[in-house]
Amino acid sequence: MGSTLISNGTVVNADSAIRADVLVRDGRIVALGIGSDWTADHVIDATGKLVIPGGIDAHTHLEYPIDGFTTRTADDFHTGTVAAAHGGTTTILDFVKKEPGRSLYDTYLRRRDAAARRSVVDFGLHAIVPPRDQQPDVLDDLRRLADEGAASWKFFMAYPGTQMVDDGELLAGFELARELGVLPMVHAENGHMVARETQRLIDSGRTAEHFHATAHGHDAEAEAVHRAIVLAESVGAPLYVVHVSSAAAAEEISRARADGRRVWAETCPQYLQVAYEDYAGLGERAAAYLCSPPIRERSNQEGLWKALVTGALATVATDHAGFCMHQPDDLPPQKLRSPGYFPKVPNGVPGIEDRLMVLWEGGVASGRIDPCRFVDLVSTRPAKLFGLFPRKGIVAVGADADLVVWDPRADHVITTAGTHMRTDYNLYDGMRVTGKPVHVLSRGDHLVDASGSFDGAAGRGAFAERGTPHLF
Amino acid sequence: MGSTLISNGTVVNADSAIRADVLVRDGRIVALGIGSDWTADHVIDATGKLVIPGGIDAHTHLEYPIDGFTTRTADDFHTGTVAAAHGGTTTILDFVKKEPGRSLYDTYLRRRDAAARRSVVDFGLHAIVPPRDQQPDVLDDLRRLADEGAASWKFFMAYPGTQMVDDGELLAGFELARELGVLPMVHAENGHMVARETQRLIDSGRTAEHFHATAHGHDAEAEAVHRAIVLAESVGAPLYVVHVSSAAAAEEISRARADGRRVWAETCPQYLQVAYEDYAGLGERAAAYLCSPPIRERSNQEGLWKALVTGALATVATDHAGFCMHQPDDLPPQKLRSPGYFPKVPNGVPGIEDRLMVLWEGGVASGRIDPCRFVDLVSTRPAKLFGLFPRKGIVAVGADADLVVWDPRADHVITTAGTHMRTDYNLYDGMRVTGKPVHVLSRGDHLVDASGSFDGAAGRGAFAERGTPHLF
Amino acid sequence: MGSTLISNGTVVNADSAIRADVLVRDGRIVALGIGSDWTADHVIDATGKLVIPGGIDAHTHLEYPIDGFTTRTADDFHTGTVAAAHGGTTTILDFVKKEPGRSLYDTYLRRRDAAARRSVVDFGLHAIVPPRDQQPDVLDDLRRLADEGAASWKFFMAYPGTQMVDDGELLAGFELARELGVLPMVHAENGHMVARETQRLIDSGRTAEHFHATAHGHDAEAEAVHRAIVLAESVGAPLYVVHVSSAAAAEEISRARADGRRVWAETCPQYLQVAYEDYAGLGERAAAYLCSPPIRERSNQEGLWKALVTGALATVATDHAGFCMHQPDDLPPQKLRSPGYFPKVPNGVPGIEDRLMVLWEGGVASGRIDPCRFVDLVSTRPAKLFGLFPRKGIVAVGADADLVVWDPRADHVITTAGTHMRTDYNLYDGMRVTGKPVHVLSRGDHLVDASGSFDGAAGRGAFAERGTPHLF
Amino acid sequence: MGSTLISNGTVVNADSAIRADVLVRDGRIVALGIGSDWTADHVIDATGKLVIPGGIDAHTHLEYPIDGFTTRTADDFHTGTVAAAHGGTTTILDFVKKEPGRSLYDTYLRRRDAAARRSVVDFGLHAIVPPRDQQPDVLDDLRRLADEGAASWKFFMAYPGTQMVDDGELLAGFELARELGVLPMVHAENGHMVARETQRLIDSGRTAEHFHATAHGHDAEAEAVHRAIVLAESVGAPLYVVHVSSAAAAEEISRARADGRRVWAETCPQYLQVAYEDYAGLGERAAAYLCSPPIRERSNQEGLWKALVTGALATVATDHAGFCMHQPDDLPPQKLRSPGYFPKVPNGVPGIEDRLMVLWEGGVASGRIDPCRFVDLVSTRPAKLFGLFPRKGIVAVGADADLVVWDPRADHVITTAGTHMRTDYNLYDGMRVTGKPVHVLSRGDHLVDASGSFDGAAGRGAFAERGTPHLF
Repeated sequence: MGSTLISNGTVVNADSAIRADVLVRDGRIVALGIGSDWTADHVIDATGKLVIPGGIDAHTHLEYPIDGFTTRTADDFHTGTVAAAHGGTTTILDFVKKEPGRSLYDTYLRRRDAAARRSVVDFGLHAIVPPRDQQPDVLDDLRRLADEGAASWKFFMAYPGTQMVDDGELLAGFELARELGVLPMVHAENGHMVARETQRLIDSGRTAEHFHATAHGHDAEAEAVHRAIVLAESVGAPLYVVHVSSAAAAEEISRARADGRRVWAETCPQYLQVAYEDYAGLGERAAAYLCSPPIRERSNQEGLWKALVTGALATVATDHAGFCMHQPDDLPPQKLRSPGYFPKVPNGVPGIEDRLMVLWEGGVASGRIDPCRFVDLVSTRPAKLFGLFPRKGIVAVGADADLVVWDPRADHVITTAGTHMRTDYNLYDGMRVTGKPVHVLSRGDHLVDASGSFDGAAGRGAFAERGTPHLF
Repeated sequence: MGSTLISNGTVVNADSAIRADVLVRDGRIVALGIGSDWTADHVIDATGKLVIPGGIDAHTHLEYPIDGFTTRTADDFHTGTVAAAHGGTTTILDFVKKEPGRSLYDTYLRRRDAAARRSVVDFGLHAIVPPRDQQPDVLDDLRRLADEGAASWKFFMAYPGTQMVDDGELLAGFELARELGVLPMVHAENGHMVARETQRLIDSGRTAEHFHATAHGHDAEAEAVHRAIVLAESVGAPLYVVHVSSAAAAEEISRARADGRRVWAETCPQYLQVAYEDYAGLGERAAAYLCSPPIRERSNQEGLWKALVTGALATVATDHAGFCMHQPDDLPPQKLRSPGYFPKVPNGVPGIEDRLMVLWEGGVASGRIDPCRFVDLVSTRPAKLFGLFPRKGIVAVGADADLVVWDPRADHVITTAGTHMRTDYNLYDGMRVTGKPVHVLSRGDHLVDASGSFDGAAGRGAFAERGTPHLF
Repeated sequence: MGSTLISNGTVVNADSAIRADVLVRDGRIVALGIGSDWTADHVIDATGKLVIPGGIDAHTHLEYPIDGFTTRTADDFHTGTVAAAHGGTTTILDFVKKEPGRSLYDTYLRRRDAAARRSVVDFGLHAIVPPRDQQPDVLDDLRRLADEGAASWKFFMAYPGTQMVDDGELLAGFELARELGVLPMVHAENGHMVARETQRLIDSGRTAEHFHATAHGHDAEAEAVHRAIVLAESVGAPLYVVHVSSAAAAEEISRARADGRRVWAETCPQYLQVAYEDYAGLGERAAAYLCSPPIRERSNQEGLWKALVTGALATVATDHAGFCMHQPDDLPPQKLRSPGYFPKVPNGVPGIEDRLMVLWEGGVASGRIDPCRFVDLVSTRPAKLFGLFPRKGIVAVGADADLVVWDPRADHVITTAGTHMRTDYNLYDGMRVTGKPVHVLSRGDHLVDASGSFDGAAGRGAFAERGTPHLF
Repeated sequence: MGSTLISNGTVVNADSAIRADVLVRDGRIVALGIGSDWTADHVIDATGKLVIPGGIDAHTHLEYPIDGFTTRTADDFHTGTVAAAHGGTTTILDFVKKEPGRSLYDTYLRRRDAAARRSVVDFGLHAIVPPRDQQPDVLDDLRRLADEGAASWKFFMAYPGTQMVDDGELLAGFELARELGVLPMVHAENGHMVARETQRLIDSGRTAEHFHATAHGHDAEAEAVHRAIVLAESVGAPLYVVHVSSAAAAEEISRARADGRRVWAETCPQYLQVAYEDYAGLGERAAAYLCSPPIRERSNQEGLWKALVTGALATVATDHAGFCMHQPDDLPPQKLRSPGYFPKVPNGVPGIEDRLMVLWEGGVASGRIDPCRFVDLVSTRPAKLFGLFPRKGIVAVGADADLVVWDPRADHVITTAGTHMRTDYNLYDGMRVTGKPVHVLSRGDHLVDASGSFDGAAGRGAFAERGTPHLF
């Protein structure tokens, strides 16, 4: 593979910003220096730029089955990871949802294979734990998965009747997680509360798209977060809460952390940057904004930012689950298949490519966080929590050369056309940003260069086997 | 000065532990590498050891005047910094207390000069802000001090009649600090509450040494912390609370931080490791343990540890203010000068040399914190808060080569005789520790080697001019 | 019935203690006066005594079926209400548990009839809401019960598989309660958490009686309380939490009330006065103390008292569910039927007769609460919450003459033999108390006089139809 | 004096609403009955009306000296108490402020005499504790005042340089209060914070009337409340916080009470009903609304109401301190004496006559509180806290016949002309209210009848000697 020297940049890690040259050889970082006289096959001049570890998106749904496996999200592992790379993300963590008639483990093997054939960046897989009645021996499969480096499991507290598990199943799963050193994850919404509110809305004819947000109350999210924390604590397990959208839920996490509980949480760019007010008046087109938990009121954003600043929110992932408004040839109708009836709108929004630019703008450019914290949120912390550190998530000797040269003074406008996701809209279309990736390297390969051209074969991405999380 | 290579160690910074070689040239770190073929004038083999940034003790009182400048603490800048170096501390931040008849600024010049003549490690100086009636134009001096790199000021909320300032003075000082980008510090005890309780104890004949702890209640400390936070917030200033001893006070800080307030706090090894129960029965010898705020009940310790783990407590300093039990030749009677009467016992305990070993034992060896957090508490965070970062507080290219090679598997017993402080007792005498420094470098100079021998001239320590704090 | 004059006493209501004569005619209070020259058929001299409204025990289980209706608690409606009257309680609220093969409403009719035939004091009935799969149309029955004055319903968050309802059922029930102006009640323990902990104890062979308390953790109770409050708030319903035993659960209630939530809670004398330490060492005899939630650590009591003082706990009831240690002739083995195996010990403790004396001693005699608050806890507040006020729960003109003449300076020892409950032990045996009832009137009938003799026929107690609760 | 029968009304006390006849003889209530055949010299038919205890206004400033005793508030003890009576208030508690050159005790004697000569309703007096340097032996005077029934003292935490006492003085005063069973009161604003903010506003030319509210921040009030609670707790004293205006301050009280602290607080109608937005745009006329603490933002009101509902706020008094906009003949210029310069506007608003009507409208008529709680807030609780209960504050046998017949279905508009206060404006002018007093009795004297005519001589009001507060 030869060697690469990234010279004259400022290396930004979670805890420091240091002027340094970075020397890469055979896909790994071998030296950092200042005033060095190093040479390399390939030199990237990073003068005036930041050199940051490649982004890690801990929450994606590529070619992800919905509606009982009859259809799937718009991006597959190839289009999705190409988009990720363009946005500065060099590792994704996607999900395995048990197929009907197939065990979780067997589903995992198939999904891992699919990802390995199409992905252009490294990937890992979280297992979604099905309700016990769908696979009584699922705990055995979870053990196998942990052994094979799929060492994180997601439990749904929402969606009664399909994916929701009860408190007894959470306890059993959390207990096994503690035993194996696995970090359990929860989708925290009280499924019964959402179901009741949804029914109430249907009964009263309020089914327009934006009522989706009414159905998914702050209280339903906050309650589930509180309960998950109590349950995890009762068996001594740590906890990771995915896609926190409500400031009230973030408050529960903040309180628990201040009390010494080992809980971490993720939020997503759409919750920080977009608001209910942006789609409440759009009629059917509001479908573009529907995801669960929902994009909430503008007044809610400040609480999320505060939680990001204080650390109550530890990571920013995308929950990328793209669906098209207008039908692509190879997929059935997606976002607009049930106009005026929110319960049938597929949930999910795209964003795998936008994440770093959007967070930089709202976070760093606005003065709320510094570049170090930015790196922590998008790369270092996910690497630590999901057992990838220090192989990934840091610019340090010995680490994979997953590197992004970041321009902190770009003048760039995000557009649907200018991004590479397959969806035909972008929540951030028209947003002006001042930071963006100019070079992206994955294990030393120069995937994206300053001209935006992409160089990387489908299947070059590798399964990232994951070990014990760093939970300090 | 030549070059030094520290090879085969694990470099531990606040956010990572990485196997790397460290190359030092002309007092600074110039490269980190793995698998390198670097050579140097001097090689230290750190196999099996950690390489950490030199400790920064943000709170010391060397040759510090008490009793109206009639006497002083036992260690001077030479003995104190030699002890510090032996303990792995390569920078200290000491205090300037205005002399009667001399302005704060003039006192500062004299004190800086004294430190520069005797110190063996680098040092900085915090200014203590006297009550307005002692120097009406003190704010002008504070401006000058900030310009000269003495960019941190301490206010006393205790000691009415001598050093205590009222809320109006706090507000004026905090406002100036905000304007100049200075981090204000407070000794947070409600002086009136302590005075009232002290009088009550005197009136009822309860003046034995250990009643000192009764006089300084948890509520007096927690109230002052709360008030300081409100006052700082009201003028938009950040805040640093020195020597937090009460878990109730730490709770106030935790709550404020969870609410997004920019407040940081320090605790000291004596509060974590020693307890009231250790001296309550010692009679006059309890004087050895008297400091303000006091060393509190054992049941209080867990709350402090929790706060250290959650980040409510951000740094560990010593408040080193040593006094001898038995009189050295050149000093008047110290700890035992008023047996049975706590109000006259000089306040302060030694610890400048013990800090890292004691915190490692209680924190890392006991599993409460990891080595990264340890480094953050003793070095990185103080460097950031007090404007020394990234020149100090990190093992990174470009930084001063203030480095400690740390043995994480030592089997060492702390003894009074085995330490280098001038005091004739040590609170930790007999304590077995499993981590200790084996080599200590200051700007590349090998001050202490594995044999424990010391090589460094009085006055080699330099004044560390400080800039804007990193408050993210 | 004639008239009765209670003269020269101090009338204590929830909000005042007033010297006054009380004139009763035809079962009701018709006048209060001072310096009156009233005459009556019957005069009770209350000089030096308090005149308080008769106690209302909002939580009893008389002749209550357990083990799938194969057996029942030891006291029937006759023995239980005679004991109640002796203790100063003139109204009880018992429960209807749906019989297998019979609707909740039909069960109610039978139970109401049984109580009407045997009770000597007035009674009301709460309905226990069965899981939906036991009676799909149960909400229709709840409407009928509310119409007939059984206007309070209890939901179990514990006992999965038998009585536990899920969050969806709670929401549906709470919603109906709000619509009808009914106060919903919950037994708040997370059934899954208790079940998991119980299984863990069984698996490890820790089945001795006292492990019952380990199985029912503080966290399981506090979690359920928190969740019930969220669920009730989400549908706009008020809430009543029965038998709060954990100070952590009381904290949740305190926080919710401070936030304006309409939640009230009950505790029981056994949680205030008895402690885990009292039975942990008793071996099999610990069975005498087993109830759910359990009697907890002594250190927990102070938190409950604090909550009583602050109002977070609003009522004191008994949860009287007596079981004998040694077998009475007409009942199968009870408390000792499964020595050494706590999961089979019937849950429940006696106390219907002890309640007022025990609370007076721990509360009033100890200075924690005043006599007014005592009256509020044992009579006024239950009357208000359960729709009996101002017919009961107050000494006021127009109210039922349910009156107790209370000696606040008695010197009395509670003994098993000296009380009238059918159980062969008393948790308070040997406890010295300084307050006790000396006369007890029910609707003007002098049931118990100063000699302790009882005069009242089985069946004189009437069903107390209940209206809308007073929730201010 | 003869007898009076108030027949057919609903007697509303703090804890009950009961249909009853009330018989009054010789100024006291001698009987309550139902279905009685009592006769009396004078009969008031209260059919459809409520009979409540006369209001007690615990915070008034009649003929109150300001500006160094050079001038005073507009109402004297005669005009003020006539207005009070018209509004349903039959007892006031006013203040003694030490005159220069006269001891606090001597000032008290003069003020008590003045009130006794002019007042038409009963009155008590709180002592304001001057800073120690104004009267070094003030604690001796406080003892004498307590002995004479002036058993409550107010401390100022605001107004540095004139009335503010420091924490040491608070502690000394609180300690004496605890010893004597006196309830200490605080005006809780951090005087230094207000002074700093005032200076900042002056410095930047923002001196228009409405900036007064900016000068008196929420944080300054909340901080002082927090500190007062800590100080009181540290010496074991209870505490009463006067005129709480900020919801943040109420939160501090709520938290303390939930924690078992013995603290009570008062708010005023102007804080509940009027808002900053009502005067921010009025220019000079905003002076009419200036009082300290200030009338705050409309968004603040809901927090105060919540605190009223939960009990964190225990009483509603007026802080009546009326000043005229246009000059009356006998007084120097008042509200408009320094147009455009808020620091010189005399602080205070009128309201002694409006209190009950305004609170009924916002509280009871709006459904936030019930009539019982209304009575508690305006009469029962002040009576208990200030040692007047059960002589006043309750409709019960033995109590003073201070009674108001209240029409809960009035249709009345408050106007400046229709009220009897001497000020030439009324904050509630034009407010429509649905409850108002129709008859007012003071110790049996029928002061105000349904026609609104007044019958009572100046000087008939008596000094109400006060005893130990009821603090349960």
